[in-house]
Amino acid sequence: MDQNQLKQQVGQKAAELVKNKMIVGLGTGTTVHYLVEALGKRVAQENLDITGVVTSNATAALAKKCGIQLKSVDEVAQIDLTIDGADEISDDFQGIKGGGAALLFEKIVATNSKKNVWIVDQSKMKKQLGAFPLPVEVIPYGSQKIFARFQQAGYHPTFRLTSAKQKKKTDSGNFIIDLHLHQIDQPQTLATQLIQQVGVVEHGLFLNIVNTIIVGTPDGPEIISAR
Amino acid sequence: MDQNQLKQQVGQKAAELVKNKMIVGLGTGTTVHYLVEALGKRVAQENLDITGVVTSNATAALAKKCGIQLKSVDEVAQIDLTIDGADEISDDFQGIKGGGAALLFEKIVATNSKKNVWIVDQSKMKKQLGAFPLPVEVIPYGSQKIFARFQQAGYHPTFRLTSAKQKKKTDSGNFIIDLHLHQIDQPQTLATQLIQQVGVVEHGLFLNIVNTIIVGTPDGPEIISAR
Repeated sequence: MDQNQLKQQVGQKAAELVKNKMIVGLGTGTTVHYLVEALGKRVAQENLDITGVVTSNATAALAKKCGIQLKSVDEVAQIDLTIDGADEISDDFQGIKGGGAALLFEKIVATNSKKNVWIVDQSKMKKQLGAFPLPVEVIPYGSQKIFARFQQAGYHPTFRLTSAKQKKKTDSGNFIIDLHLHQIDQPQTLATQLIQQVGVVEHGLFLNIVNTIIVGTPDGPEIISAR
Repeated sequence: MDQNQLKQQVGQKAAELVKNKMIVGLGTGTTVHYLVEALGKRVAQENLDITGVVTSNATAALAKKCGIQLKSVDEVAQIDLTIDGADEISDDFQGIKGGGAALLFEKIVATNSKKNVWIVDQSKMKKQLGAFPLPVEVIPYGSQKIFARFQQAGYHPTFRLTSAKQKKKTDSGNFIIDLHLHQIDQPQTLATQLIQQVGVVEHGLFLNIVNTIIVGTPDGPEIISAR
């Protein structure tokens, strides 16, 4: 089975978690793409009545196309369940997100959800975080200064670029600096250091957010829950 | 002497701190307005060669009008001296800023400066912080949720509005929530709690930034330095 089939499998499996009348946070990325399509089918075929809360302009466009009604996070009392992808997940259920540059809205939606589930193919499961570059969303004004401090700290930063080699702008008009750390021994300490830097809006460390993960494997989707 | 005369007095006094070839951070607000005008006069009359780094679109417009050459914080190696106003300063030299909605860029410039000086009239000097509402800059998406959490915490939040009663947008396109705390006993603890909330971009607590303040009094400008 190729990676896309694994992603499709977990996207479809995750769609089964959604119940009638739920307010559902919808993440961003290729795996979530399959989830949204599967949810759209359930809405059409089963008359499923759900409201989606999106994490990016891209997911909003897809969800509308699939017939899922949408509300802003500010228009709902609470989100019942958010299903999102992840770029890397460690043994202890901590994650790195932001490969799709939507980490800020993803974190806003995740932290306003009663329950979060991540859906990934098995290549994302790692013993420890850090092989995947850690995205940090920064205010453009002063971003070169933050970049220089990251260099001095040995974080091997690179600005995220578009295909046209321009600095990528997020949905909030900020830049992304990717930190090539290779191994993150103390994610909580790093998270605290990053968020306290003036000009850092958010970072891609998602700590203590999920306790259920659906992993796509050649033997079928596997649901893993933290104790 | 009225408040405006006190502000003019300290603005002019602060302009004397600026030396030839300096890179000078220029704050935002009415007191800084007098500083920038005084610096513009020195540039014209003494041939003073300085570069300004601004903290808002408003100050940029004024500085250009006064003949001060400008660079972005990212175009200079370091800022030698930043002079800014403050909305409230406690006995121990901690401050609240952001009454002019420019706190984010002000903090970015301040934290990239070798030295910071605040210029205020004496009405801003308080024993303890908190009488002035504490501004918090937040991402619009999810801002109602942050507002609700601030309410639950007893922070008495209000959204900053424009004269047309719309939510005020900062130079970065964010909202400002003002916290009416009346008394802040543990500024450092509060600062840490605020910055760690997802969706909070920055807050108006400026802690451990300055050790020199110029205060306008009826007896003339008084320079106070922390030990």
